[in-house]
Amino acid sequence: MDKAVKQKEIESSRTDWPSVNTKAAPLVKALIDDAEALRVDVSKGPLGECRIDCGVRAIGGLEAGRRMAEICLAGLGRVTLETTNPDSAWPFMVTVHTSQPVLACLGSQYAGWSLSGEENGKKYYVLGSGPARAMGSSEKLFDELGYRDEASSAVLVLEADNPPPKALVKQVADACKLPPDRLTFIYAPTSSLAGNVQIAARCLEVALHKTHELHYPLEHIIDGIATAPIPPPAPDFIAAMGRTNDAIIYGGRAQLYVSGDAKAAKKLADELPSLKSKDYGKPFADIFAAVKGDFYAIDRMLFSPAKVTVTALKTGESFEAGHIDTAVLSRSFS
Amino acid sequence: MDKAVKQKEIESSRTDWPSVNTKAAPLVKALIDDAEALRVDVSKGPLGECRIDCGVRAIGGLEAGRRMAEICLAGLGRVTLETTNPDSAWPFMVTVHTSQPVLACLGSQYAGWSLSGEENGKKYYVLGSGPARAMGSSEKLFDELGYRDEASSAVLVLEADNPPPKALVKQVADACKLPPDRLTFIYAPTSSLAGNVQIAARCLEVALHKTHELHYPLEHIIDGIATAPIPPPAPDFIAAMGRTNDAIIYGGRAQLYVSGDAKAAKKLADELPSLKSKDYGKPFADIFAAVKGDFYAIDRMLFSPAKVTVTALKTGESFEAGHIDTAVLSRSFS
Amino acid sequence: MDKAVKQKEIESSRTDWPSVNTKAAPLVKALIDDAEALRVDVSKGPLGECRIDCGVRAIGGLEAGRRMAEICLAGLGRVTLETTNPDSAWPFMVTVHTSQPVLACLGSQYAGWSLSGEENGKKYYVLGSGPARAMGSSEKLFDELGYRDEASSAVLVLEADNPPPKALVKQVADACKLPPDRLTFIYAPTSSLAGNVQIAARCLEVALHKTHELHYPLEHIIDGIATAPIPPPAPDFIAAMGRTNDAIIYGGRAQLYVSGDAKAAKKLADELPSLKSKDYGKPFADIFAAVKGDFYAIDRMLFSPAKVTVTALKTGESFEAGHIDTAVLSRSFS
Repeated sequence: MDKAVKQKEIESSRTDWPSVNTKAAPLVKALIDDAEALRVDVSKGPLGECRIDCGVRAIGGLEAGRRMAEICLAGLGRVTLETTNPDSAWPFMVTVHTSQPVLACLGSQYAGWSLSGEENGKKYYVLGSGPARAMGSSEKLFDELGYRDEASSAVLVLEADNPPPKALVKQVADACKLPPDRLTFIYAPTSSLAGNVQIAARCLEVALHKTHELHYPLEHIIDGIATAPIPPPAPDFIAAMGRTNDAIIYGGRAQLYVSGDAKAAKKLADELPSLKSKDYGKPFADIFAAVKGDFYAIDRMLFSPAKVTVTALKTGESFEAGHIDTAVLSRSFS
Repeated sequence: MDKAVKQKEIESSRTDWPSVNTKAAPLVKALIDDAEALRVDVSKGPLGECRIDCGVRAIGGLEAGRRMAEICLAGLGRVTLETTNPDSAWPFMVTVHTSQPVLACLGSQYAGWSLSGEENGKKYYVLGSGPARAMGSSEKLFDELGYRDEASSAVLVLEADNPPPKALVKQVADACKLPPDRLTFIYAPTSSLAGNVQIAARCLEVALHKTHELHYPLEHIIDGIATAPIPPPAPDFIAAMGRTNDAIIYGGRAQLYVSGDAKAAKKLADELPSLKSKDYGKPFADIFAAVKGDFYAIDRMLFSPAKVTVTALKTGESFEAGHIDTAVLSRSFS
Repeated sequence: MDKAVKQKEIESSRTDWPSVNTKAAPLVKALIDDAEALRVDVSKGPLGECRIDCGVRAIGGLEAGRRMAEICLAGLGRVTLETTNPDSAWPFMVTVHTSQPVLACLGSQYAGWSLSGEENGKKYYVLGSGPARAMGSSEKLFDELGYRDEASSAVLVLEADNPPPKALVKQVADACKLPPDRLTFIYAPTSSLAGNVQIAARCLEVALHKTHELHYPLEHIIDGIATAPIPPPAPDFIAAMGRTNDAIIYGGRAQLYVSGDAKAAKKLADELPSLKSKDYGKPFADIFAAVKGDFYAIDRMLFSPAKVTVTALKTGESFEAGHIDTAVLSRSFS
């Protein structure tokens, strides 16, 4: 095999990326078809947009969250609920693998589209995730990825306590250049079962996002798989957010396969796990309280799986760093 | 999120429950379509009913049992065969999760329909499980659930050594108000591979059933996931029954998510694991022998997973009790 | 249950085996349909044959390898990527179970069809695996199995660095009695991500193959499930081959369910694990170097999972032998 040729193809492959919204569409349809069984509520919003409530007034559940996660990954990944050591405190995990980690996780799943709107004098602020980002969001990440989607419909996933207000729907429609009735908004609060699963299912995405923050070239990320314990939901938003973060920060495990040289892979492995952050060591909710709720005062290097292995495909070497911290996990989850 | 509103909806949700027989129908069709690959035998019974033998004269296997389990759950759950610690004695597990635990497990999977019939002077007694119960069974559980199914076909799963006799088929048809040719009977003996998987796959149902026996309100059970080791089949019925019970009693692990107050959740967790039973501690076949085969002399509190976690969604607290007992499991399985 | 009758049916069941190429066809179609998402390249070869590159010039990945493995198993098995202890060095596993182990693993997945051809003066030698073997290969294994496939298309999987040369395609077409445009060749090198997954997914097949080498009657193998860690790819062919072998030899775990008597089952369990081989104890690449690359100088008894359990269905006894050797695995994988 001519390595030079392969490398070149890897780096240029982004132009062959499939349409994330087109890939996600059959999964959105299946979620709607199975709404009753999944206890999610499908309704039409005031602008004709499709709304799927997975945990606000709807009950939703673990499976609804699993489906949300696969939609976030644009149908390019598999999310499974599974078991590790049954005698441990948190044996049930959500495992994620995707055939297109950069596109599925960063080009779609990452909650990067900052949106807001007001309704009845109430401010609504949300970070949109999922396929619609690749059509409508102006995040500069898409320039870096060199990817933009075009499709006849779009789906956006919201970690939210309410359906999106009219102004926000209109903003998304305009940005996606689609009529509002071609949009689907799927939402669940952080405190819901579905929310917990779909957020913990970001374990691979979080690894990729930190990889990007570390200025590691995204085109060198060839494949990945990751897992995190399913956190128990907390009714309080801060506590719920804390647990979903802790599931990844103290319980997450990722394996990345990279091209590029082994030295860079080793450096990435060394820097990637959450324990390399100065804020590591306490449940996230405590860290959040310590900075008086100023999210941006938290070290961004904290957001990463607890333990990672990076395999350099060029040399076949693997570099491991970090560890699962069951003690902090127990404090956070109980 | 308005918790009061959500609670109300949870409690009234049973009226929105989907038709279990309609949901199961595509899975029954798939089992028939894949009969050759799955080594199950499909035939027409004397009253025109469809019979699917998964382990009597047919070979069946683990996968046939997995399919039976998903049909028992009315297509509302996922049953997977998976791996835990590969160096352990029994690493292969059957894991179950469902988007509708009360409906799928108690309204369908639970073996609660007591049926009998004679053929050629031979008595046939069986506890029917699966979707047809919700159409035809007079168990008072259905009044408690406030649920009844109506559908154009029905499927019943039998832990049995033979196909159902004519009288039993007629009884089911009459009770379901369907012609016999709209009925499917899927059966496998306790001693078969398929039987072992489909029974171990009751790990979540058993947790819910004991929860019900403990008078915990079923409408407070919001979600659940459970696992149990795949027991090795035993040719003797008592030994086989013992192992399938032990897989859950000494090897089962469940996680339940409940509404209602945390005190009740803690009480449930404390009482739920099998070790709270006075009969706990020996392989089930030994317990059964000690009561001279009088099933009803066995403490019903024994039938439960070995270890459980109950998460109270209202406060976010989780309560854990019990433990996996590999010593008893080893005695039972070997 | 009449055991005598059941035994007879088990032994004659091979005549009921489904068409492996027909069963695999929808999975091949799905691989083609999802080519872009899976980063595999589909093209037409010079004789009109369909070529699917999963890791030579194409990037492929873990999921492409998982799909290759399910095609190798003729759609008769499930291959899943999943998680064991997340704090261990190699937590991500490939788990395989099939409803037809002998047919799926030996009649299809086993790489037993020795093929060669020249192109541009370059010798191309490969061991073909997958459904087409059952149509075209003259391995005497098929006489033993008493099985031959007939279908309107055929698919062959190649562990190879290049697409098959014209002469090889013609040889396969002639042997299968099909025009070349009814053939699909799926290939990936040992050193690719897809190659690693599809080879590690041979953990059950390897157990069955050694069982056969031990002259244990294949008709007594009723069911099986197995797992192996996903090995990290190595760019060097010898190192890559070493790791994929080591994943099974030192990290593989299998459970077989057999008919026949318990004594034979115990003997099988005792002889089956890799540690019973005189060559056991070092990474495969070191063993290969020690015999100066003469593959046939290596003890064939080495090729087997690290740890096995054999359950004798006739008595219900289970026999376990071997152990997972994380030390050798670590040396091999790093």
